[in-house]
Amino acid sequence: MNSFRFDELKIGMRESFRAEVSSEKMHAFRELSGDCNPLHNDESYAREKGFRDKVAFGMLSSSFLSTLAGVYLPGEHSLIQSVEVKFLKPVYSGDSLLVSGEISEMNSTVKQIVLKVSMENQSGERVLKGKMKVIVNE
Amino acid sequence: MNSFRFDELKIGMRESFRAEVSSEKMHAFRELSGDCNPLHNDESYAREKGFRDKVAFGMLSSSFLSTLAGVYLPGEHSLIQSVEVKFLKPVYSGDSLLVSGEISEMNSTVKQIVLKVSMENQSGERVLKGKMKVIVNE
Repeated sequence: MNSFRFDELKIGMRESFRAEVSSEKMHAFRELSGDCNPLHNDESYAREKGFRDKVAFGMLSSSFLSTLAGVYLPGEHSLIQSVEVKFLKPVYSGDSLLVSGEISEMNSTVKQIVLKVSMENQSGERVLKGKMKVIVNE
Repeated sequence: MNSFRFDELKIGMRESFRAEVSSEKMHAFRELSGDCNPLHNDESYAREKGFRDKVAFGMLSSSFLSTLAGVYLPGEHSLIQSVEVKFLKPVYSGDSLLVSGEISEMNSTVKQIVLKVSMENQSGERVLKGKMKVIVNE
């Protein structure tokens, strides 16, 4: 786990890691959230809706943003203030997501960083983009 | 599960439900996301940082927004396009959150609704607010 302090961070710093979306994680997310929508649970239903398989919960992919801030950038001293995400393409069970964040703004008065975030699948398709505001609570 | 079609929806329509934050859900979210940050895992660490207990993952609370759209408003035909959340106050294990959404805008060309979302804890404190754009994919 990284433990960057505010003074060690700079605009343009980047971190990334891979996160896997599995049927076990789909099941765990359904139990956790209570979201039993068939798009995420029933393959033939999802096909009727025009997808090639059950679609992964967007908020499951978004859970990796917690890890991006809390483990990588800034890591230990992370306190997430806000998150904005756009879902660009469907994510499926079996996908391997490259989760990336880059510091785009810094506010030294409140030790806040802004991260531009992005996720790509194993085919290099961008599936998610967004922005997070994180306090470095050192 | 609700199954509202676009034509059945109106600006001002609201849905809400209660969701519990438990230590089991904290554990499940940690496994799912890989976010092993001590703020969510170590009570004495969280106290040193000024909190009264381990802080629930913001993205765990946010997972209930998946349920808000996918089960309640619009329910079955939900396809979430984007989510914006601000974390206003800490959430702790044992908290019972009232998760609410209200339709604030509708775009009939693309059958998109905008939900103003909010979460309150059992003491009536607002802990999260935000906005979601959802396609009614009927």
